[in-house]
Amino acid sequence: MKLVLIGSGNVAKTLAVLFKNAGHELLQVYGRDENKASDFCEMLGIPYTTHWQQINPDAVLYIIAISDSALPEMGRYLSLPGKLVVHTAGTVSKEVLSGISDRYGVLYPLQSLRGSAPVTAQFPFLINASNPPDIELLINLVSSVGADFQIVDDEQRARMHLAAVWVNNFPNLFYRIAYNLCEENKTEFKLLLPLISETALRMDGTDPAKWQTGPASRGDVGTIKAHLDMMKNHPHWQQIYSILSEEIKKGS
Amino acid sequence: MKLVLIGSGNVAKTLAVLFKNAGHELLQVYGRDENKASDFCEMLGIPYTTHWQQINPDAVLYIIAISDSALPEMGRYLSLPGKLVVHTAGTVSKEVLSGISDRYGVLYPLQSLRGSAPVTAQFPFLINASNPPDIELLINLVSSVGADFQIVDDEQRARMHLAAVWVNNFPNLFYRIAYNLCEENKTEFKLLLPLISETALRMDGTDPAKWQTGPASRGDVGTIKAHLDMMKNHPHWQQIYSILSEEIKKGS
Repeated sequence: MKLVLIGSGNVAKTLAVLFKNAGHELLQVYGRDENKASDFCEMLGIPYTTHWQQINPDAVLYIIAISDSALPEMGRYLSLPGKLVVHTAGTVSKEVLSGISDRYGVLYPLQSLRGSAPVTAQFPFLINASNPPDIELLINLVSSVGADFQIVDDEQRARMHLAAVWVNNFPNLFYRIAYNLCEENKTEFKLLLPLISETALRMDGTDPAKWQTGPASRGDVGTIKAHLDMMKNHPHWQQIYSILSEEIKKGS
Repeated sequence: MKLVLIGSGNVAKTLAVLFKNAGHELLQVYGRDENKASDFCEMLGIPYTTHWQQINPDAVLYIIAISDSALPEMGRYLSLPGKLVVHTAGTVSKEVLSGISDRYGVLYPLQSLRGSAPVTAQFPFLINASNPPDIELLINLVSSVGADFQIVDDEQRARMHLAAVWVNNFPNLFYRIAYNLCEENKTEFKLLLPLISETALRMDGTDPAKWQTGPASRGDVGTIKAHLDMMKNHPHWQQIYSILSEEIKKGS
């Protein structure tokens, strides 16, 4: 499939590698920042441009992978009548693209793509399009890279983005707290890595409630109190620990 | 090394498999519950007993893997003068074993061993012993199975147990919340599994702060408000989300 990618950040870079490796023809990448665009385009042998006027008109699909806040302005720069145009954002309505083409949709990679390439080669997409035949086109694209997918409306996609915050941003905050506890404690944070992996890798898609362990789940008041005492210099962590222990006890 | 295991729960079972596979001689398992003891001992070809009087006196090391609350009573059942005796608990002082032998210590597996065998074959141990030469004996044991370890005092071990709560029990609670959000949303929780894995597997032992992403870390007030609105039927989740977003913003 002939593709043009608008954007030169981590999402654009990851999708470029993914689709190129699956044999799709990346006609062009548009990037505002020439250094960022040339960085991966030259490595992958993909032409790039920094000028809106030079966007290649021959693609089947235009994928806009830019920041959420820049999406509403796109209609000022881009007009692609008759072409399928999608964005990659978690919480922005697909309608934001309606000024660019009457064929628009969403191709949202449900993965944290900050920094280098993801550890897991595979991640799923949440997709949708204003015209039903274009949904088929997006299904073909994601299937060609072996990716899982679900067709979801704007509301469902926003709620999956919320769920992503729960399983990524908040656990990462807790890894940071554990890291700081280890630093204070002169113990090695790396000793926790097998536990961190195990906790994540035993998820199988069924209700994680069956894996809930720890002092709160067994009502071990003595250990909870001892833990709170150990954090007496960190009142915020005490507060978070207490609220979460209550939530676990309630069997949320 | 000749070993006797006291206990027949998940920790005892996991250690039995681990040490047996590394070529150690498991002389015996003591289990209060005959069904649980016979369950894995027969499979592994290890003799077991349900009688304190029949504990094999010929082991080099006695590993007590029972519930924290039962440890203080052990002196009533067990006397092993001159033998090295260790427990496997995260928050119990090693002194609790001083009534059994003058050689006592701790062999704490820093892993969640509930249910079936762990996904990751390797996990580290936190170790200590009342007599320095016994620390060497424990190092030899854990090294023989290729496990990482750190020698820690009771306080450090308790704090690592606290860190384990932060990286296991609380993320698991959030996987449950995400599961419930998906159920309400008619989206597939399994689509979040690559994100859950990626979040965990990119930890490398250095400060996880560099991986912090999401609306709170970029000060995206609009998305935070939208997320809170989506949880209007779950005031507890709203409260937790707000407190954690503040903590991320502070750069905890």
